[in-house]
Amino acid sequence: MESTYRKTRLHNPMRRFIVIGHRAVTTPTFKLQDIAGTGGRWDVLLRCIAASFCLSHGLRKDTELYLVCLGGEEAPKTVRLQGEHLKHVAPDERTLATLILKALEAPAPGLTWNASTPGISVAARGLEDLEEVVMKGTRYVLEEGGIDVAAVDVTPDGLGGDVAFFVGDPDGFTEEEVRKIRDDWGAVQVSLGPVGLHADHCIVLIHNWLDRARQG
Amino acid sequence: MESTYRKTRLHNPMRRFIVIGHRAVTTPTFKLQDIAGTGGRWDVLLRCIAASFCLSHGLRKDTELYLVCLGGEEAPKTVRLQGEHLKHVAPDERTLATLILKALEAPAPGLTWNASTPGISVAARGLEDLEEVVMKGTRYVLEEGGIDVAAVDVTPDGLGGDVAFFVGDPDGFTEEEVRKIRDDWGAVQVSLGPVGLHADHCIVLIHNWLDRARQG
Repeated sequence: MESTYRKTRLHNPMRRFIVIGHRAVTTPTFKLQDIAGTGGRWDVLLRCIAASFCLSHGLRKDTELYLVCLGGEEAPKTVRLQGEHLKHVAPDERTLATLILKALEAPAPGLTWNASTPGISVAARGLEDLEEVVMKGTRYVLEEGGIDVAAVDVTPDGLGGDVAFFVGDPDGFTEEEVRKIRDDWGAVQVSLGPVGLHADHCIVLIHNWLDRARQG
Repeated sequence: MESTYRKTRLHNPMRRFIVIGHRAVTTPTFKLQDIAGTGGRWDVLLRCIAASFCLSHGLRKDTELYLVCLGGEEAPKTVRLQGEHLKHVAPDERTLATLILKALEAPAPGLTWNASTPGISVAARGLEDLEEVVMKGTRYVLEEGGIDVAAVDVTPDGLGGDVAFFVGDPDGFTEEEVRKIRDDWGAVQVSLGPVGLHADHCIVLIHNWLDRARQG
């Protein structure tokens, strides 16, 4: 199908996705033979990586993904992926799992981002430690009953500028997370349609709306 | 995010997706450790299964997926998945691969569909042998330069009724396939946006447009 992609626009607005893996392990302990079971649903997060970055021909450079992992001994730990610097990313779960095992092996003693492979780094950060990141653009959170994404403002103060999208994992968001995201950070509640979808499929849809909003 | 799904509507229009795996092996010979390499990119087709059927809570029942496999000794062979009857489907590639290995083990001596596990069957069919299936609804093919899906007629004669979508694998379509799909079967050329996407991401977007078209 279509293959045109505008690579070079100066100051391309950034697309940031934040996914909280409530059970996702923070140590390189999951088994490639059973990522879902041994990784606390790391399979979901891996598919979010493919949805965030993988195009038919190439990777999305204007995208960052923050995977907040709250499972296991080293929680909280956040894995940050930056499209501008990513390499060796293919959309299959096994390739992505190998990259993530390397990331979880890297030491993350504090808030400083520590690189593992190109474009991937880790820090001992939870959701609240991402404030500086998410406040760089307009915040949106996917929630049932939110306004339809088709009706969201597409000016540079809305979908047309830097954006941060909070996407739920299979456990959704805790009340405390909702308070932080919605009340403290003022994220706009947005809905993608009448059917409940997996996190990675939500990211695919959001990208398409952003592609459309920025097409003109 | 949202979780409402209208399960029960009489005579729900059917959504059919046809993906051609030009190199996808037709025998149960790919290795779980390297599905992409040993399966002729079966990893792409597995992700199309997740995109076609997997919702946040449950499976899409009004969907059928036809995976036309043209690689290996037993080509052509088509694997048919029917949402109404599917069981044990999870979105991770390993679970899906195990189901598909069972399907490829089932004998497929002719055009008759032969069941392997619930909702999954195989037949010695190529693209041209799907005519009866695709002619049940309006046909669409994803192509660069096609009309924007947002502008497609949503009446029961268009997106609002039975539909069949042809989606390219990483190899696209051959000239012969294009002739069959577009000229013989009159498929409308449709585009999803300005950026070239993987087949599974295209299916996610098409489902969302159909969900929206049928929401009213």
